[in-house]
Amino acid sequence: MRKKKQVIGVLGGGQLARMMALKAHEMGIELHVLSASKDDPAAQVTSFWTKGDIYSTSDLTYFLKGKNVVTFENEFIDIHSLKKAIMKTKTRTAPHFQVIEKLQDRWSQKLLLQKNGIPTSPFFKIDNEEDLIKSFHFLNKKLVLKKRRFGYDGHGTFFIRSLSECKKMKAELKKGTSFIAEAYIPFKKELACLFASHQLSKVISFPFVETRQKDYRCHTVLGPVHHPQIKSFVRLLSKFIKKIKYEGVIAFEFFQTDRGLLVNEIAPRVHNSGHYSLNALSKDQFSLHIDSILRNPIEAPEKIYKDFAMMNLLGKEQRDTKWKKIKGVFLHDYSKKEKKEGRKMGHLNAVACSPNEALKKLKKAIKSF
Amino acid sequence: MRKKKQVIGVLGGGQLARMMALKAHEMGIELHVLSASKDDPAAQVTSFWTKGDIYSTSDLTYFLKGKNVVTFENEFIDIHSLKKAIMKTKTRTAPHFQVIEKLQDRWSQKLLLQKNGIPTSPFFKIDNEEDLIKSFHFLNKKLVLKKRRFGYDGHGTFFIRSLSECKKMKAELKKGTSFIAEAYIPFKKELACLFASHQLSKVISFPFVETRQKDYRCHTVLGPVHHPQIKSFVRLLSKFIKKIKYEGVIAFEFFQTDRGLLVNEIAPRVHNSGHYSLNALSKDQFSLHIDSILRNPIEAPEKIYKDFAMMNLLGKEQRDTKWKKIKGVFLHDYSKKEKKEGRKMGHLNAVACSPNEALKKLKKAIKSF
Repeated sequence: MRKKKQVIGVLGGGQLARMMALKAHEMGIELHVLSASKDDPAAQVTSFWTKGDIYSTSDLTYFLKGKNVVTFENEFIDIHSLKKAIMKTKTRTAPHFQVIEKLQDRWSQKLLLQKNGIPTSPFFKIDNEEDLIKSFHFLNKKLVLKKRRFGYDGHGTFFIRSLSECKKMKAELKKGTSFIAEAYIPFKKELACLFASHQLSKVISFPFVETRQKDYRCHTVLGPVHHPQIKSFVRLLSKFIKKIKYEGVIAFEFFQTDRGLLVNEIAPRVHNSGHYSLNALSKDQFSLHIDSILRNPIEAPEKIYKDFAMMNLLGKEQRDTKWKKIKGVFLHDYSKKEKKEGRKMGHLNAVACSPNEALKKLKKAIKSF
Repeated sequence: MRKKKQVIGVLGGGQLARMMALKAHEMGIELHVLSASKDDPAAQVTSFWTKGDIYSTSDLTYFLKGKNVVTFENEFIDIHSLKKAIMKTKTRTAPHFQVIEKLQDRWSQKLLLQKNGIPTSPFFKIDNEEDLIKSFHFLNKKLVLKKRRFGYDGHGTFFIRSLSECKKMKAELKKGTSFIAEAYIPFKKELACLFASHQLSKVISFPFVETRQKDYRCHTVLGPVHHPQIKSFVRLLSKFIKKIKYEGVIAFEFFQTDRGLLVNEIAPRVHNSGHYSLNALSKDQFSLHIDSILRNPIEAPEKIYKDFAMMNLLGKEQRDTKWKKIKGVFLHDYSKKEKKEGRKMGHLNAVACSPNEALKKLKKAIKSF
């Protein structure tokens, strides 16, 4: 029996919304996009596009109307505008807007981790210079200062290694920007792992992967990785996800240290570290996000290749349609109109018999761009 | 170095154009669709849609302008209108419109096969009742009558087993409809195989598959199949494709008889029998068609699973988003607005360790729709 058609809305029109839309098309699900420009990556791939500002209550209200569920391309939303729109339309959001509210603020995110017994680095809330200097001494004169909200890819992150560097932050702090200070963690590797969940389902997990950064941006992903603590972290984080009643795909980033894994950050959405799933797993993160927010049955995706790697195409590494095709290398282009140094223009996935072999293939392919 | 952006046009907005568009998005290629309605399957998945009639010279002329290459969703085009539009716009089509012209007519298609030494069933051109009766006797009183143009999925195909059945065709023949009569071939199985090619490349081939029909429509595909003649047919057909300077993906359908393989029909386009490639091969038919018409490097796709099957979702077998998810089963929904008995609404792909196991999975999944 065919049920009533489900209509999804996504706030934002970047590459994450684009890949969500492409998968929704495959699944025959009507997914609408709210974004500023017709040229946005997601706006190009659908006829269900609405021009609008995701920070405006009236645009949100208009867009939310009639949608069965609305989801997010990222956590950078104005919760106050959103709440007003939800009050008027009664539209469900997935994840729940209160979860987004907690996770979009690094301070409440860290508190939530701590409260749930999830290993994470020591941290302090920083509202003024005095807070900063106190933390500086508590954290052995080396800390990472992060803006509480709207920081990404290294924007809003500062390394503080001296009192004079503390002082340099004075102006920013006087403006009223709120930060958290985290202990500087000497790590061996950074790892990441996605989970998917909804209220009628168990929590499912993806393989753990290694993420390598370039200028504070995720650049390369390799996987799967093995670590003796993975099992216990999957158990712990699954319990956490269930407890906060999370719906959708959620990404955890980890530091791998000499003393074990620490959770670095949570991203309440599909994530760059999971793009490999488009070609390496039996089900990709975008399809699983859609099934999760619709509360459809979900199952943990299986590897369909032994090992894999992913590399972002940044700024000038722009593609030519005649790039060197290599077996087991897959292009995902975001059709961004505007090139900018360091901007994510697309990504390449590779599959092979070892993560390093997959990486080698990517490097070879990328040279031909 | 980034070359100038390539823009592709597709005539038609059905499921084949839809799947082409979805793959073009992944590849970052701008693919425009010309079709009648905004609700057409392909029109829904792109912002590059133009409303128009693919049989109208003026609509074609408008659409062809500025495209680097224009391709076809199917061979049912009005060559005269197209030629006029090409004269005005100088736009390249791939495959070349003259090739389409030859292949869209079953009579010239059969002649082409014969001329190139490709085994096919005996046939006659039928323009009137006399032709039909003569052929009826020549072909041992059992023949298949097919409309020369615009026949599909059994529409325009008639089995003639008696003189009275010949007479029943009188009215149709008097209207001026032209047919071919083919010998009735008792076959064990029907097989199919795709090839891709362009003028700067070698011809590449896909695995051979078995196709099973239901009411003259392709319904189920299983593969890969093995047959002692496959190698020699790949050689023969590759030579043929090269000779006619074919550009794009092309499908061949075969009868498997006691006396070997015969080519039944050619479809100069992506094809229902190749939908399995979306999940079972390292590269799917739609991506390879796009690369071929752009004259990008192409390589034969590899199996990424041992065996596979595909089943069309017809008419009322319409999906519910809560269908039973089975590992290794993938849905491709065409989002058709209008349900009709027997209409192709989507398809399911399955991968497994044997074609029959894949088929079993599909049957289990389809029950839950």
